[in-house]
Amino acid sequence: DLSLQENYFGRETLDRLSGRRTDEVWLETKQKDLATVYLLFSNLSPMVSTPQEDSEGGDIKLCRFRYEAVKDLLQKPSTVLIFLGMEKMKSSSSSSSQTEEPPVWFAISTDEDAAELLRRCRENTCLFPKTPNRDLLKLSEEEAGVVAQARSVLAWHSRYSFCSTCGSSTHLEEAGYKRSCLNPECRSQRGVHNTCYPRVDPVVIMLVIHPDGNQCLLGRKKVFPAGMFSCLAGFVEPGEAIEEAVRREVEEESGVKVGPVQYVSCQPWPMPSNLMIGCLAVAVTTDIKVDEKEIEEARWFPRQQVIDSLFRGASPAFFVPPRQTIAHQLIKHWVGMNSNL
Amino acid sequence: DLSLQENYFGRETLDRLSGRRTDEVWLETKQKDLATVYLLFSNLSPMVSTPQEDSEGGDIKLCRFRYEAVKDLLQKPSTVLIFLGMEKMKSSSSSSSQTEEPPVWFAISTDEDAAELLRRCRENTCLFPKTPNRDLLKLSEEEAGVVAQARSVLAWHSRYSFCSTCGSSTHLEEAGYKRSCLNPECRSQRGVHNTCYPRVDPVVIMLVIHPDGNQCLLGRKKVFPAGMFSCLAGFVEPGEAIEEAVRREVEEESGVKVGPVQYVSCQPWPMPSNLMIGCLAVAVTTDIKVDEKEIEEARWFPRQQVIDSLFRGASPAFFVPPRQTIAHQLIKHWVGMNSNL
Ligand SMILES: Nc1ncnc2c1ncn2[C@@H]1O[C@H](COP(=O)(O)O)[C@@H](O)[C@H]1O
Ligand SMILES: Nc1ncnc2c1ncn2[C@@H]1O[C@H](COP(=O)(O)O)[C@@H](O)[C@H]1O
Ligand SMILES: [Mg+2]
Ligand SMILES: [Mg+2]
Ligand SMILES: [Mg+2]
Ligand SMILES: [Mg+2]
Ligand SMILES: [Mg+2]
Ligand SMILES: [Mg+2]
Ligand SMILES: [Zn+2]
Ligand SMILES: [Zn+2]
Repeated sequence: DLSLQENYFGRETLDRLSGRRTDEVWLETKQKDLATVYLLFSNLSPMVSTPQEDSEGGDIKLCRFRYEAVKDLLQKPSTVLIFLGMEKMKSSSSSSSQTEEPPVWFAISTDEDAAELLRRCRENTCLFPKTPNRDLLKLSEEEAGVVAQARSVLAWHSRYSFCSTCGSSTHLEEAGYKRSCLNPECRSQRGVHNTCYPRVDPVVIMLVIHPDGNQCLLGRKKVFPAGMFSCLAGFVEPGEAIEEAVRREVEEESGVKVGPVQYVSCQPWPMPSNLMIGCLAVAVTTDIKVDEKEIEEARWFPRQQVIDSLFRGASPAFFVPPRQTIAHQLIKHWVGMNSNL
Repeated sequence: DLSLQENYFGRETLDRLSGRRTDEVWLETKQKDLATVYLLFSNLSPMVSTPQEDSEGGDIKLCRFRYEAVKDLLQKPSTVLIFLGMEKMKSSSSSSSQTEEPPVWFAISTDEDAAELLRRCRENTCLFPKTPNRDLLKLSEEEAGVVAQARSVLAWHSRYSFCSTCGSSTHLEEAGYKRSCLNPECRSQRGVHNTCYPRVDPVVIMLVIHPDGNQCLLGRKKVFPAGMFSCLAGFVEPGEAIEEAVRREVEEESGVKVGPVQYVSCQPWPMPSNLMIGCLAVAVTTDIKVDEKEIEEARWFPRQQVIDSLFRGASPAFFVPPRQTIAHQLIKHWVGMNSNL
């Protein structure tokens, strides 16, 4: 069923327990708990360990720290500490009638020297990935979900440390989910204002289907690797519905007009904090005229060519983004579908 | 078909022509065009005219101004001018082979005295609505769509006039769709940053269906008028998928656990700039425990009671928000559906 589809970065293994964000006593106890897990971020990248032998290509894993290993960082005023939540799954070993709560997780962002930080880890294959767009796709589904949450919130702190209403400094509150203005005269102090809360940017990403039902529209940006084509996408604008944003962006970027639009699934994309809303869209015109500022080329691809490149037939005509992207999943969803929506 | 459902505030009668936002020559010509329509905003409310006789309750209409009537305001440095777009529909009268383009629309926000501004209008039933939440629901579908766009963008300018990255002043660019930092050293000047673009906050709003398929969960906030119940709703958090946000918010607010989630339709809500993402959600538990900080009461309502209050049966047990809200439309959608999802 469509509504059960989960995309990479979308798995929630932690219960966010938002009610605890204002419970400072509880948070402080949990910070010192021996079972608590800390992730270390530098420059918005988490410390990860890479596989020892690169025979397999292999996955990367988050480095997990205990309180003792990071408590000095927690003292520093420049450290940003985010409460991520409590593990949802009971560990299989504690199936006995223990009353112990599952471990909670925090993310730490620090401006300490990265090389120094890496020395804190016992493994010597640790690093802070330099190209998050690509490197963060190598995590497990579980860890990807945690990183999506942590990186989005940390990226917000890194860009929103001043009050946009009055220009004053702000300070972190509610375990990392709020920033309040330090100017007591500021308008943002009266009532509820979105300036105080993390920003999430909704983006529509859509696979446009040819009126004949057997071709789809894919485009390339100049920055894409040679040969790669993907779904069109764009930011939802103020005062705009999802379906209207799909129609507008497709027409802007390709000149193609779209009729019916159908939501398929979504994906949090923590670069820095987008919510990718994935749709199928049925074209009502077919002439292509690309917006050269954004798109280098757009083309109708026949279903068979798309199948060949998804499943890596011999010398495919083009390739699509990796399976961890919602673009890939939308394309796969379409080739698996009946040709009429 | 679901995907064609349109909600109040969602109609787009203007083509946003985002490509023109950087075309200053074109914009200036259009500003002076005699056919151009200006809307006047004061304190984030548009000037509207109300029906002369209040016999009918009646609708409100936007006051439309020509260049001559507002050109003095355009000179003032405190005025904010937003390009809204070009009318999509050709006026039926110009079905001849005229080459004239349809009129374009702008929104003006000014801090001039409201009483003074009202004198610019020939009609004497004009006003700036004081309770936008309620009053802006009285517009036509067409005008509501334009107001959704204009008010969201203007609300962003009113709250985001300082750079959140460095605290410096910013200035308006791209016909109202961008604000750039005036500090040449600022990080926000290098690369693309969401700090420069209008903010849209995704919110999930959901009708939770009882496992028996014949009851739905509605709640009330303390601020609701007595007797009103509505769908639960909440902000999508960073790194969170829509379906997960539905599950989290329902559990936070009511204690009920949710399984499958299905997107139905969405609604731009310009107070100040939310994107309401409407879903049906199937409960897998039924015990209710409300979060008293946010919700005063939540209850399972049997389908027949919901039908009675939607269609104003004799003395309904409760009432739901007006038809212009997506909450109303979700509830109506459910009562019109077969009892199994
Ligand atoms: N929230 C945002 N974050 C980043 N870029 C944005 C945002 N909103 C609008 N833009 C602009 O949209 C461009 C990308 O186009 P698109 O993704 O097709 O809407 C960027 O280069 C920016 O100029
Ligand atoms: N973008 C936002 N705008 C306004 N309030 C927010 C935002 N994000 C989180 N909140 C908080 O969420 C509360 C409303 O709860 P909910 O709508 O159920 O998520 C508000 O009172 C704020 O404390
Ligand atoms: Mg795009
Ligand atoms: Mg765009
Ligand atoms: Mg675009
Ligand atoms: Mg809520
Ligand atoms: Mg919430
Ligand atoms: Mg809530
Ligand atoms: Zn402030
Ligand atoms: Zn700046």
